[in-house]
Amino acid sequence: MRTQVVIIGAGPAGLVLGHLLHRAGIECVVLERHSRAHVEQRIRAGVLEHGTVELLTDLGVADRLHREGLVHTGVELLFDGVAHRIPLRELTGRAITVYGQHEVVKDLIARAGFPIRFEQGALRLRSDRAVETAEGVVEGDFVAGCDGFHGVSRPFVAGSLRVYERDYPFAWLGVLAATPPSAEELIYALSDEGFALHSMRSPTITRLYLQVAPDEKLDDWPDERIWAALQRRLAHDGFTLTEGPILEKGITAMRSFVVAPMRRGRLFLAGDAAHIVPPTGAKGLNLAVHDVKVLADGLRRFYAGGDEAGLDAYSDTCLRRVWRVQHFSWWMTSMLHLAPDADPFTRELQRSQLRYVVGSAAAATTLAENYVGLTGSP
Amino acid sequence: MRTQVVIIGAGPAGLVLGHLLHRAGIECVVLERHSRAHVEQRIRAGVLEHGTVELLTDLGVADRLHREGLVHTGVELLFDGVAHRIPLRELTGRAITVYGQHEVVKDLIARAGFPIRFEQGALRLRSDRAVETAEGVVEGDFVAGCDGFHGVSRPFVAGSLRVYERDYPFAWLGVLAATPPSAEELIYALSDEGFALHSMRSPTITRLYLQVAPDEKLDDWPDERIWAALQRRLAHDGFTLTEGPILEKGITAMRSFVVAPMRRGRLFLAGDAAHIVPPTGAKGLNLAVHDVKVLADGLRRFYAGGDEAGLDAYSDTCLRRVWRVQHFSWWMTSMLHLAPDADPFTRELQRSQLRYVVGSAAAATTLAENYVGLTGSP
Repeated sequence: MRTQVVIIGAGPAGLVLGHLLHRAGIECVVLERHSRAHVEQRIRAGVLEHGTVELLTDLGVADRLHREGLVHTGVELLFDGVAHRIPLRELTGRAITVYGQHEVVKDLIARAGFPIRFEQGALRLRSDRAVETAEGVVEGDFVAGCDGFHGVSRPFVAGSLRVYERDYPFAWLGVLAATPPSAEELIYALSDEGFALHSMRSPTITRLYLQVAPDEKLDDWPDERIWAALQRRLAHDGFTLTEGPILEKGITAMRSFVVAPMRRGRLFLAGDAAHIVPPTGAKGLNLAVHDVKVLADGLRRFYAGGDEAGLDAYSDTCLRRVWRVQHFSWWMTSMLHLAPDADPFTRELQRSQLRYVVGSAAAATTLAENYVGLTGSP
Repeated sequence: MRTQVVIIGAGPAGLVLGHLLHRAGIECVVLERHSRAHVEQRIRAGVLEHGTVELLTDLGVADRLHREGLVHTGVELLFDGVAHRIPLRELTGRAITVYGQHEVVKDLIARAGFPIRFEQGALRLRSDRAVETAEGVVEGDFVAGCDGFHGVSRPFVAGSLRVYERDYPFAWLGVLAATPPSAEELIYALSDEGFALHSMRSPTITRLYLQVAPDEKLDDWPDERIWAALQRRLAHDGFTLTEGPILEKGITAMRSFVVAPMRRGRLFLAGDAAHIVPPTGAKGLNLAVHDVKVLADGLRRFYAGGDEAGLDAYSDTCLRRVWRVQHFSWWMTSMLHLAPDADPFTRELQRSQLRYVVGSAAAATTLAENYVGLTGSP
């Protein structure tokens, strides 16, 4: 089989790319290892930047997002027992929307005007233009590797890549609870026991996170222990954390990872295949969407008249934003977690940083403008 | 001998305190270990915050400062070979003034309406109210320890102090050169060889700094090697570094240091006796001036009617700003120096941070507002 662009992976990166190319009249096919049900149920991030919402709206896949998504015009930072609101919209004119990544994926699949082949099992890259599936080889002018950190695209180009990484000395224990959110907005908390996050999936489902040791076992965290830790870490005046049945729990390691360049020949990496950010900045999905927007622009210019300038600039253009987002995610992570080896000097710097962020309009704006998503380059 | 406030140290902290107390009708005496010539010739910092200039003006000791000081409305950040201007005044409404610390000291001594006893040699604290000198004991209601990091005040209260510190894995090699500055403003540079700073003392004297290893020997840095390194690290389009005779050179270790509380009984620590900041933020003198302003306010309230609230709040009030300044100085230092153990991930974060600071008005303002000096608390 032959197409113009072979897209590996039916996550947000691959699907948004499919929509962008289809709209531009470029032929593509998405190859996905797993079933449709699997990708539609994978619980991932849930904070959409202003620009991500705009793009999805523009693509005509955001009706449900606008109906069900929760628009947040601020976030809370809680430290030393006091919560402070960062008014995102007031500081930047923009807001974020809380809407699960798997819901975005459902909407993208439902409206796809291009073929998505699910359940392809193990894929293999034959070259930078050809992907081998169980049903035969799919060949294109280009391949877009949107198959995540554990996909086949990154290893294929590993030899020519420079790798940057950082592991953090803690992990997140995340739970999904069948209880309405206890506050309207997200609460990022730093307590003497470490980080906690109060978030939500919907008006009836709360999403909560706790900083734990990287080697922590889920078995050591029965529900009562989780709620007790959340109650302590999120405690502040006027706030009552409502408990409820825990539907799902899991531990996620925290890491930063970047490969460069994000291209080898005609194979382009996008999203988690090229970079991982710690979840504190809520950036993974948004960064993936930015990548494929740049890639689609480059492909459009190429097919319009053979102009390769956009494709040649792809990696540098994306990496500029990748590093901005890596820095922001690292900064949020450092500011809001207790590193086990932090000396008293570091702790006081951290507290002064937090006080400054909530006390200075300029500093609050640096958080806000990164959180809602910077416009233009970087 | 008996007075109201015994001030140890005739540096900027002790002398400004003397002026403030004298103006408030509070009797004080300054005891200084060294000679007047010694303290008037000690080369130290040279960047005055807006608020420091205001206070010195208010005290009537700033005539020469306003005549000879160089008002700077911006600073330059040079990285990846390109210089970017941070327009301090445009972003904050305020500016900095370049005027040597020893010139400030001369002006403060010249106009002192209170006794300053120089050449007191080794002083000894008898208690938190009494200082022993070669000429006898000076007793007061209070003692202000303004005698720097190596003075007698800090060790006297060491037992009750909590100490916070950080050593940096590099030092500054500073030179004073008899050549006009090569640019009108300060240039903070990060090159592949490390940090460099172009500064000035006057229209005919340039002050320059190079990041070197902490154990570097001055003997290994003949003048030609210094100029060659400065030429490489400060190189950028449209800039020519003018060389000239080197009048003075020295290596300074970089460290952060804080003691808390800044008080024991009736002894109050101010300035370098309580905290050291790395010089990158140009904050040492300004922070000392802030301390003694708070202390003078507390003492005025006490003598006006026995109200000790200001004195009781002294340490907390000062430490809030101390930590803000420590954080800013650490941040500037981290952003602008090459740590010998920095991995490629850290290097890219640093570059992204620099691009962000010069590319975002909010981020530039965080640098600018700290650099010119934050108003109000923090």
